[in-house]
Amino acid sequence: MKVGEKNYRSIWKDEGDPGSVHVIDQRRLPFSYEVLTLRSCEEVCDAISSMAVRGAPLIGAVAAWGVYFSFIEHSRGNDVRSAVMLDALKLKSARPTAVNLAWAVDYMTAVLDKFADADVMRRAAQALCDQEAERSRRIGVNGLPLIEEISRNKGGGVVNILTHCNAGWLACVDYGTALAPVYLAHDSGIKVHVWVDETRPRNQGSRLTAWELLRHGVPCTLITDNAGGHLMQNGMVDIAIVGCDRATASGDVANKTGTYLKALAAHDNGIPFYSAFPVSTFDMTVDRPDQIIIEERDADEVRMIDGIIIAPENIPVSNYGFDVTPARLITAIITDRGICRAEKESILKLLA
Amino acid sequence: MKVGEKNYRSIWKDEGDPGSVHVIDQRRLPFSYEVLTLRSCEEVCDAISSMAVRGAPLIGAVAAWGVYFSFIEHSRGNDVRSAVMLDALKLKSARPTAVNLAWAVDYMTAVLDKFADADVMRRAAQALCDQEAERSRRIGVNGLPLIEEISRNKGGGVVNILTHCNAGWLACVDYGTALAPVYLAHDSGIKVHVWVDETRPRNQGSRLTAWELLRHGVPCTLITDNAGGHLMQNGMVDIAIVGCDRATASGDVANKTGTYLKALAAHDNGIPFYSAFPVSTFDMTVDRPDQIIIEERDADEVRMIDGIIIAPENIPVSNYGFDVTPARLITAIITDRGICRAEKESILKLLA
Repeated sequence: MKVGEKNYRSIWKDEGDPGSVHVIDQRRLPFSYEVLTLRSCEEVCDAISSMAVRGAPLIGAVAAWGVYFSFIEHSRGNDVRSAVMLDALKLKSARPTAVNLAWAVDYMTAVLDKFADADVMRRAAQALCDQEAERSRRIGVNGLPLIEEISRNKGGGVVNILTHCNAGWLACVDYGTALAPVYLAHDSGIKVHVWVDETRPRNQGSRLTAWELLRHGVPCTLITDNAGGHLMQNGMVDIAIVGCDRATASGDVANKTGTYLKALAAHDNGIPFYSAFPVSTFDMTVDRPDQIIIEERDADEVRMIDGIIIAPENIPVSNYGFDVTPARLITAIITDRGICRAEKESILKLLA
Repeated sequence: MKVGEKNYRSIWKDEGDPGSVHVIDQRRLPFSYEVLTLRSCEEVCDAISSMAVRGAPLIGAVAAWGVYFSFIEHSRGNDVRSAVMLDALKLKSARPTAVNLAWAVDYMTAVLDKFADADVMRRAAQALCDQEAERSRRIGVNGLPLIEEISRNKGGGVVNILTHCNAGWLACVDYGTALAPVYLAHDSGIKVHVWVDETRPRNQGSRLTAWELLRHGVPCTLITDNAGGHLMQNGMVDIAIVGCDRATASGDVANKTGTYLKALAAHDNGIPFYSAFPVSTFDMTVDRPDQIIIEERDADEVRMIDGIIIAPENIPVSNYGFDVTPARLITAIITDRGICRAEKESILKLLA
């Protein structure tokens, strides 16, 4: 999407250097726009675990390059496959929740098993990025009619959309998941306005979502994570759209902590609540919310902000990164293959 | 309550100087413990509007001293009453939501009308503080059995209590409202543990609630405002207790933004959700949530923290200070006069 007048993706390769790939260092936004060049599987692991790159689809795309780099690094060794499989395990454990990570790594090791060729693997990683962008665009196309309908019902008035965390083009390769329909609506001339949850403790909303919406020219307002309920109670939200890090076969959605609270408020106020993600985010091996492992992150994410301590030192902290919104609170799921209800039958039909 | 080994109140007078009163500058906590000396009605107005003092009961107590100072300042003028009534209006408008503020100011101007005597008014202000402390202690006494019962049901195991914002002794003159039962339970040997919502944007939870619980020795854990839902879904919260800035005659509770979201989560998970406050917090002239004016606060509270910008500069911000939790989500109301259901009939019986 746009940064100023220029179109960007969140990951791109250097045409002159097949041994590297570029990503935006998302830890620096919105204050500084810095590009990281990744050249090894280790650098990819670091970029993922340090959250220089984040967002389930982007993590998958970057991890695919990680497998490619691993192959290059070990291609002169005795047992390439074993070495790459070891790196694949490291990549998979760089973040525990995102299912796209494991999916992309498994895809690349399957390519390795079939071809074991550097050029084929590089093209596979690039194709995976292109497919991810196209998937996001399809999510946008499929979600757009929902916003169009609200706009029509409001006689062309502003459609107020609430989102949580960052599920925009920075989280994906392009377009985004939750924000893909928003960008397509905005670009097609529909009046939209986005309520951006700041998303403590890492503030992906105020840092990333606000940044990318502002840069693309989409009207938006920053709110605390506490505020969405009040806005919903007072008719200031027409639709909520969030992303997803892992969805169960029953349509339960693991997403950034606090998503569940917004879903409850939407439900309580009769506001449609959607989760938008590519079908690769479904983990059909998991059927119940309690089967999803929720990542616990560092206490200092809560105690400090930008290196400044904002709480009593050494206070115990609990910092679960995600929560699970039960399917019953989700109006529908917007995917690259279409829209489905948050229930097994509807999901299986979509995946068939 | 305790700070180290010493017992404190959040407001106290200087025995040697009847023309001043001391308060803790709550903007500096938890990093620095500083005492402000207030000597004029204007200084009281500033302390309230700048949130050096905050919390509905403490605001009322401090405002009472403001009326006393105004009387002293104008007692040599021609029309004392008109001058004090003008200051009373200024005091009342220093913060828009807290009903205790107007209540305390009206009480003091009634004393003025009856006696118009500096000594009587000083004693009235002091009595109001003492009564506020006693009210909080009564809230604690009335709420204690709720915690005792959970403790018994858990065979003496730890009772996990979630609270939002600061409704402890710093918000009151002593004991607190929501935290009064917690302190009494802790002091009587019941094992308690408090989940402290950080309470964006002003972080009263991480700054004040965490500070006062730690200083008194009550085990507590800091969480983001987003986290409570996940904890409730996973059996980690036994009871939620919050304060209140204004309650309607129907039992709806205006409290710090985000309270509504926690009430929804408690309701969704069958966890009892209580609001604790002195009966003076009831505004019996107001019957519906939409009749409560919700304060909108400065955008920079959200954009900045400790003077550090944490969002794109100039991003539009919406910053409502409170939300209203509808009575249907409240298990019961804990007051200084006893416990009542959140409904008009039960409230009227309590107030009779």
